[in-house]
Amino acid sequence: MTQQHSAQSAAEVIAAMLIIGNEILSGRTKDANLPFLAEKLNDAGIRLREVRVVPDVEAEIIAAVNALRDRYTYVFTTGGIGPTHDDITAECVAKAFGVPLEQHPEAVRRLESHYESGKLNAARLRMANVPAGGTLIDNPVSKAPGFRVGNVFVMAGVPMIMQAMVDAIMPTLKGGAKMLARTVSCALPEGTLAEGLGAVQDRYPTIEIGSYPYLRHKQYGVSLVLRGTDEKLLEEATEAVAALVRDLGGEPSIIAGTA
Amino acid sequence: MTQQHSAQSAAEVIAAMLIIGNEILSGRTKDANLPFLAEKLNDAGIRLREVRVVPDVEAEIIAAVNALRDRYTYVFTTGGIGPTHDDITAECVAKAFGVPLEQHPEAVRRLESHYESGKLNAARLRMANVPAGGTLIDNPVSKAPGFRVGNVFVMAGVPMIMQAMVDAIMPTLKGGAKMLARTVSCALPEGTLAEGLGAVQDRYPTIEIGSYPYLRHKQYGVSLVLRGTDEKLLEEATEAVAALVRDLGGEPSIIAGTA
Repeated sequence: MTQQHSAQSAAEVIAAMLIIGNEILSGRTKDANLPFLAEKLNDAGIRLREVRVVPDVEAEIIAAVNALRDRYTYVFTTGGIGPTHDDITAECVAKAFGVPLEQHPEAVRRLESHYESGKLNAARLRMANVPAGGTLIDNPVSKAPGFRVGNVFVMAGVPMIMQAMVDAIMPTLKGGAKMLARTVSCALPEGTLAEGLGAVQDRYPTIEIGSYPYLRHKQYGVSLVLRGTDEKLLEEATEAVAALVRDLGGEPSIIAGTA
Repeated sequence: MTQQHSAQSAAEVIAAMLIIGNEILSGRTKDANLPFLAEKLNDAGIRLREVRVVPDVEAEIIAAVNALRDRYTYVFTTGGIGPTHDDITAECVAKAFGVPLEQHPEAVRRLESHYESGKLNAARLRMANVPAGGTLIDNPVSKAPGFRVGNVFVMAGVPMIMQAMVDAIMPTLKGGAKMLARTVSCALPEGTLAEGLGAVQDRYPTIEIGSYPYLRHKQYGVSLVLRGTDEKLLEEATEAVAALVRDLGGEPSIIAGTA
């Protein structure tokens, strides 16, 4: 990976998420996994930098896995690891890595202990297939494990299972400097704040300042979100934004957080 | 575009969505625009085939716009067209197309008529900047327009405005065969259905069959979603799935829809 292709600066640990499933692209299922993963990664000092949603189509999944695993420290996939014909994530990840898909003995053991005698049919046994060299991710909800291969973590799409898998994964990741955040909210319009806000951004280039207008109880307002890893600089920039709001006749309210 | 790079078959009109914004990747803002757009496109016979979420970073936005506009009939972007320093979508799209960013006279006129005298400052005037050759997308909510350039539609991220823009765009799009859907729900586990379901899928290769397990009122079940453009084939395949459910001792309930 050459320097200009890298999206990573020295201090950052960066990640991508790959959401696999026609049901997301059809609008039928509303993804709830992205915000959950984003917040967990934030807490660990890992920045989610890109998300892709692709259909249950082999070529699309393989291309996306390879594009993302090459660019990011970690890649997290959700969806497509169940027992039905449309669950093709494991075989696609194996092909992306150019390794065979193999029945994982420990995964088989877990499925055997979960299902009543005679219920572990061929379809369910597919859930024990893991790309060669992969290690299992625990699934305390319904046993069928996810897996890690290289820097790619393959998880279920069902939120309750996905969340349990993320919790199992997090302690194994190498995080970077933790991202801290402050939100300055006020009832001023964005366009009034824009010039001064740009000046604060120029003064604090390592603090990322976002401006998000909202409509709440028929009242327009804006949340000015500052994010950075240096708490002192973050506090300074936050105070500069709050002072700007006051100068323009607004009343800033400040909240600390990680998102 | 060579055949193997095309994601489009003859009968399909396909689209991608590009969600632009750090606030989505940090988990702070939960995107609501994807399902809205997906359903509107479904209704028009256009298939949403890929979604990407990228940060407010010029190189990332340009690369994603160019990757997607080359592959898909239509590309829809959301976010980054406000008046603040982090709103860089218009200039990135201009760079992606290799055209200058220009002040659009009609966009200026709309902003002038919206703001009180003296309130249309330099920051707000940025919202009138459109890549050369672009045409405006109406914004009945807050006036600042979106725009279309080539096959790329650039919209606001605030859902109320985004939705109004989608409604303005839809009549201008060339749709394909409308996607029809049937959902067969039952209380059987996925693993019991998988083998028979795969056989139905093999028998009806042009009907896309997805299996989505759920947990509702402490009862596990599965929604088997069939989608296709040929209503007769869709009905046949749906009946085959319902028969499978009955054969396995389940009680299928069938719902018609577009997602």
